[in-house]
Amino acid sequence: MQVVVPFAATEPKTRLADVLTPAERTVFARAMLADVLTAVVEAGHEPTVLATAPLDPATLDLEADVRDAVSVAVDERPLTEAVNARLPERGDDDPVAVVMADLALTTAGALEALFSAAADVAVVPGRGAGTNALVVDHPEFRVDYHGASYLDHREIARDVGATLETVDSFRLGTDVDEPADLVEVLVHGTETDRAPARLREFGFELERTDGRVTVARLEESRPE
Amino acid sequence: MQVVVPFAATEPKTRLADVLTPAERTVFARAMLADVLTAVVEAGHEPTVLATAPLDPATLDLEADVRDAVSVAVDERPLTEAVNARLPERGDDDPVAVVMADLALTTAGALEALFSAAADVAVVPGRGAGTNALVVDHPEFRVDYHGASYLDHREIARDVGATLETVDSFRLGTDVDEPADLVEVLVHGTETDRAPARLREFGFELERTDGRVTVARLEESRPE
Repeated sequence: MQVVVPFAATEPKTRLADVLTPAERTVFARAMLADVLTAVVEAGHEPTVLATAPLDPATLDLEADVRDAVSVAVDERPLTEAVNARLPERGDDDPVAVVMADLALTTAGALEALFSAAADVAVVPGRGAGTNALVVDHPEFRVDYHGASYLDHREIARDVGATLETVDSFRLGTDVDEPADLVEVLVHGTETDRAPARLREFGFELERTDGRVTVARLEESRPE
Repeated sequence: MQVVVPFAATEPKTRLADVLTPAERTVFARAMLADVLTAVVEAGHEPTVLATAPLDPATLDLEADVRDAVSVAVDERPLTEAVNARLPERGDDDPVAVVMADLALTTAGALEALFSAAADVAVVPGRGAGTNALVVDHPEFRVDYHGASYLDHREIARDVGATLETVDSFRLGTDVDEPADLVEVLVHGTETDRAPARLREFGFELERTDGRVTVARLEESRPE
């Protein structure tokens, strides 16, 4: 199985602009990417970062064995086109997994459940009918990430006669896009994960108020 | 295993007040309860609704075999106290599962993954560190639903020397509290589920705009 991790290398995570500076967003996006790549390698695969601009794996915070397993392919086209160019074209091609780079809660175990799905197409939906991860083992299935892609992917699978399985995972179903998602990173991240460590360095911590938990940024750590 | 489904029988789902009338909220909450109870029975168990006020299962939209398997216990105390009164007290007591009534995406399969967890305490977190479902097989563990309960439950398990497993499920991790959650009900509900059927009757449908999916309510179906 080939595992592709699409990564927006320039101006990532703009929806976090209210709480992180551009430089912090870059650091945080690269930390999440490093966590995802580490989980893919722990699950036994050698990931390819599908980046919108050149990226040197040596500049990512990776253990040596993970770094050695990672390769980078640059493709400046929109996500849908860049991914489709990497999907299986013939029946005997290897299956291809596509795992988004902002799935900060990813673990090897969660990926293994996805990778072991038996259907022609296995999809992990995110909130709002997004497609957070999928595995394609069918020569005709193509992605369309625009709009409610989970619904589209179910339809596309049906149209090409591919079986489809929806994989149930909170970890893979949580993409980190908005300030509220930072709570999940701090709640579910482990001690060795980079993304929660970077958030803590930026001064974020869980705030346990009455009835719910939010993130707060320490006053002195806020950028001017 | 005993399966308890806590249900706020009066004024449920107040955070949906912006999009549903009180009467609609009651109908919708009871539809979600019926879906959860059906999934519990399909998973091979006989659920007890732990209701804050009397509730006649015959008034719920249930298949006959499900209705026969459901019992109701009324407990007016706050959720934490009412649940704790039902947890195992001795080492040889049956395990007790607690599944919230607003987990509209629940399936028998998702419940089976939870029910088969081997730890003393198995927890399914929701967003924002809530506890959406758990199974307790330890005589000293007690719940505390106030605040960031998932973090508290991890701590309480540690304090009483109970092993804890976090069960990874998008379906069980999605509690339906806020208008944005209605999207998930319409995207992931099946044809036989009651909750999406009621939403459609109320005039809600998925609206697929540029880049994301939301719910919209048909103009003529809006309450005055």
